[in-house]
Amino acid sequence: MQQASFNNNTICAISSPPGTGGVALIRVSGENAINICGGLVNKPLIDAEGYSAHFCTITYKEKILDDVVVTLFKNPHSFTGEDVIEITCHGSEYIQQQILEALIELGCSMAQPGEFSQRAFLNGKMDLSQTEAIADLIHSKSSAAHEIALKQMKGGFSSELKTLRDQLIHFASLVELELDFSEEDVEFADRKELYNLIDELIAHVGKLKESFQLGNAIKNGVQTVIAGRPNAGKSTLLNSLLNEERALVSNIPGTTRDSIEEVLNIQGIDFRLIDTAGLREATDKVEKMGVKRTLEKISSSSLLIYMYDALDTKTKEVEEDLIKLDQLNVPTLIIANKIDLLENGNTLPDEHLPMSALQIDDAEKVKESIYDLYGAKNFNLESTIVTNARHYQALKKSHDDLLKVKDGMDNNITGDFLAMDIRQVLYHLGTITGEITTDDLLGNIFANFCIGK
Amino acid sequence: MQQASFNNNTICAISSPPGTGGVALIRVSGENAINICGGLVNKPLIDAEGYSAHFCTITYKEKILDDVVVTLFKNPHSFTGEDVIEITCHGSEYIQQQILEALIELGCSMAQPGEFSQRAFLNGKMDLSQTEAIADLIHSKSSAAHEIALKQMKGGFSSELKTLRDQLIHFASLVELELDFSEEDVEFADRKELYNLIDELIAHVGKLKESFQLGNAIKNGVQTVIAGRPNAGKSTLLNSLLNEERALVSNIPGTTRDSIEEVLNIQGIDFRLIDTAGLREATDKVEKMGVKRTLEKISSSSLLIYMYDALDTKTKEVEEDLIKLDQLNVPTLIIANKIDLLENGNTLPDEHLPMSALQIDDAEKVKESIYDLYGAKNFNLESTIVTNARHYQALKKSHDDLLKVKDGMDNNITGDFLAMDIRQVLYHLGTITGEITTDDLLGNIFANFCIGK
Repeated sequence: MQQASFNNNTICAISSPPGTGGVALIRVSGENAINICGGLVNKPLIDAEGYSAHFCTITYKEKILDDVVVTLFKNPHSFTGEDVIEITCHGSEYIQQQILEALIELGCSMAQPGEFSQRAFLNGKMDLSQTEAIADLIHSKSSAAHEIALKQMKGGFSSELKTLRDQLIHFASLVELELDFSEEDVEFADRKELYNLIDELIAHVGKLKESFQLGNAIKNGVQTVIAGRPNAGKSTLLNSLLNEERALVSNIPGTTRDSIEEVLNIQGIDFRLIDTAGLREATDKVEKMGVKRTLEKISSSSLLIYMYDALDTKTKEVEEDLIKLDQLNVPTLIIANKIDLLENGNTLPDEHLPMSALQIDDAEKVKESIYDLYGAKNFNLESTIVTNARHYQALKKSHDDLLKVKDGMDNNITGDFLAMDIRQVLYHLGTITGEITTDDLLGNIFANFCIGK
Repeated sequence: MQQASFNNNTICAISSPPGTGGVALIRVSGENAINICGGLVNKPLIDAEGYSAHFCTITYKEKILDDVVVTLFKNPHSFTGEDVIEITCHGSEYIQQQILEALIELGCSMAQPGEFSQRAFLNGKMDLSQTEAIADLIHSKSSAAHEIALKQMKGGFSSELKTLRDQLIHFASLVELELDFSEEDVEFADRKELYNLIDELIAHVGKLKESFQLGNAIKNGVQTVIAGRPNAGKSTLLNSLLNEERALVSNIPGTTRDSIEEVLNIQGIDFRLIDTAGLREATDKVEKMGVKRTLEKISSSSLLIYMYDALDTKTKEVEEDLIKLDQLNVPTLIIANKIDLLENGNTLPDEHLPMSALQIDDAEKVKESIYDLYGAKNFNLESTIVTNARHYQALKKSHDDLLKVKDGMDNNITGDFLAMDIRQVLYHLGTITGEITTDDLLGNIFANFCIGK
C-alpha cells in the first residue's frame, strides 16, 4: 500500500478540528518544512531556533493571506522527529485552504490520514502501540478511556511488553541450554524453573488478553439493558439518571450531545443504557418473537437493570422474569421501586435495591450500584488494560502459542520445536509495538487516523 | 452591559474550531496566565521568554491530562497585549474540556465571545474597526471578502479615517479662525478654500459610504437572479457553471459545501444564483401573483441573467419579457442560447451574449460576462471598501452632517454652529475606530464574535 511506505516528502495538513474557529493550526513536517514555510513568511526561519514562535505575515504570489504565528520544531526534537512547522492562522476556512494550497504549490504533499503519527513511528519517536494510543486519545470521550489511552501513549503498555519479551528471551535461552545437552539425554535440573516461567508468562499474557473485554467496554461503553414491566418506574429512573447527566454536560461548552440521552457516565465509565420495551409483553403470545429478541439483546449486554414495582400484585410475573433473566448469566441489578408506599411488614430480598419513586436522590444509589456491579469488581486502571482489537488478536495468538509451548513441555517435545513456538510468541508481541511490521499492517492502522495527526 | 466592561480576570477559551481534531488550541490571557498555566505543567514557565514553545505534560489533581505544547507571549507583545499562553493539546473534546475546567478551577474565567479581541482593543493593540475586521476575516468565504477584511485588520481603513479626521480638524480650525473675527464682520478671504475643503470631505465620505453597497455584496454575496422561458437552457447553464465550481471546491479538503450549489465564485466574488421559475408562467393569469413576486425578487437583486432560446419562435414573448425586465433597472445579462443551431442570416442584437447549448466552454464566457456586468465596473479593491453596517451608518451620519455644514456655509450660518456640526462628524467617525465608545456599543460588537477570539 502506497500510504504505508515511507517517503521523504514534506507533508502538510490542517491539524485542528474542521470548520471555522478563532484560530486554526496547520502542520508541516519534513526536510523542506522550514524552507517552504520560510518562503511564505516575512521573517527568516532558517536560522530560527527550535521551540521558537514567530509572529509573521504570510504572503503568496504577492497576495497577503494572513497574519499568523509560526512555531518551529527542529529535527529530531519534534512530534514526527522531522523538522516541523506549526502555523496558527485565523480560523477562516478560506484562509486555511489558501495557506494549504500555497504550501502544496510550493512542494508540500497533503498528509495522508495519520501520516504525522506514522512518521513519528518510522522515525523511532514512539512504538506502534503508542502511536495507536494517540488516535484513541483523540477519540476518548470518558475519563477511563482517556486515562488508558494516555498511559498507553506514554509507553506503559510498551514497557510491559518489553518485560514480557525479556522473560520470553530468558525462557528461550534456558530452553536452548537444555537443547544443547538434549542429545546427551541430560534432563535439565531446572525443569521446574521452566514450568514456573511458562506459567508466569501464560498468566501474564492471559491477564492482558482478558483485560480487552473491559478495555473494549471502556472504549466503546458498557452495554446496559434496562428491563421491567410497565409502570415499574423505568422511565422516571432513566430520566432522573440522564437529566442529572445532561445538566452536567451542558455546563461544559462545546460538548457534543449526539445520542447523549442514552449514555450515562459513572465515575469515568460510559454505560450505554438501552431501554427494552420488549420484555413487558412477555405474556402476550403474539409478541413472543419480540421477547426473544429482547432476551438476545440482554445476553449480548454486559449489564442488566431489572426494575419492578414493589406494590404490584403481579409478583408471580416478576418472579418468572427474574428466573428467566437469571438464566442469561448477565450481571443484574434488581431495583424494587415505590418502596416508600409499601406497607410495613413486607420485606424485600436482600439483593434487591430499594428505591422510592419520589426520591430523585435514589438516582445516586442506582449509579453506585451500576458502577459496583460492573466496575468495582473488574475495574483497575492501575494495571494495563488492552483496548485495541489488533493488540487483543496478537495477545490471543501469543497466549495460544504459549499454551502450545507448555503442552510441548508436558509431552517432552524437543527444545528446537519449543523454540519455534517461542519465536512465534515473540513475533506476535512484536507486531503490537511495531518491531514486526508489514506495509499492509501499517497502512491499515494509519488509515483509521484523522488527517492532520 | 457586563461583558463590555473591562475586568482584569485571566480568561481562557478553546480558540480552535469546535469538535475533534488532531490538535486543539486553548488560549489563556491575563495577568495570571503564566502563573496559572505554570501550575498545570511540569516545566517552570515563569522565567520562560516570550515567543517560546515548551513541550510539557499537564497534570491536574494528580491526574495526567495530556502532553501538550505551551507557547508563551509576554505582555505587551501578544494578541491581547496581556500575557498570553496558548496550549496546543490533543484534539479530543474530552481533553479540551478537562484542561478548560482545570484552568477555570485554578482561577481563569471563561472568555466571553470576542473577549480576546476586546482586550486587544482596550489595551490599544488595535482600533475598533481593525478588531471588527478579525471577525470578518474569520468568516470570510471569498477572496474579495478576505482581502477587504485583511486590509481593514491591518489598519487600511483606520489610516484613511485618520486622514479624514485630520482634514476635518484643519477645516474646523479654519472655521474657528473665521469665528474669531466674525464679530468684526470680517469675511474671511479663504471662503473658497473652505468650500474646496468641505466639498472634498463630502466627496470622500460619500465615496466610503457608497462603497458599502459593494462591500456588503462582497461580504454577503451578489444576489443574481436567473430568469428565462422554459427550455431556454437555464438549468444546463446553471449546471455547467456550478459543476465546474463544484469540481474546484472538492479538490480542497475540509470545504463546507452548505448550499454551495447556489453560490458561484468568480474571481473571488460570490454570486448567489437564484433560479426563478416564476417568470415563465407570465402568460398564465392564475400565476400573476407568482410573476409579481419574481419581479420583486429581481428588483431587489444586484444582477439579472435572462436567457432565451434563439431558435424559439415565440420571440414576441421574449421581447415582452425584456421590456418588462428593463423597467426594473437591474443590470442585466441577456444570453441567446442554441445559437449554433440558428440558420445563417439570423442576427442577434449586439448586447446579447451568444451561447451554444452543446459547448461547455460557454460557461467561461458567461462567467466573464457576469463578472464584467457587476465587477469590472465597480470593483476596485485598491480603494477602501466598507463592509460593516455599523461603519456604514456612522459614515452616513457623517455625510449628512457634512452636507449640513455646507448648507450652513451657503446660508452664512455663524462659525460656532458650523463647528457643532463638524464636531458631530468627528464624533461619528470616532465611533468607527472606537475613539468614541460606550459600553453598550462594545457589548453589541463583541457579542457577535465567536468565543476564543
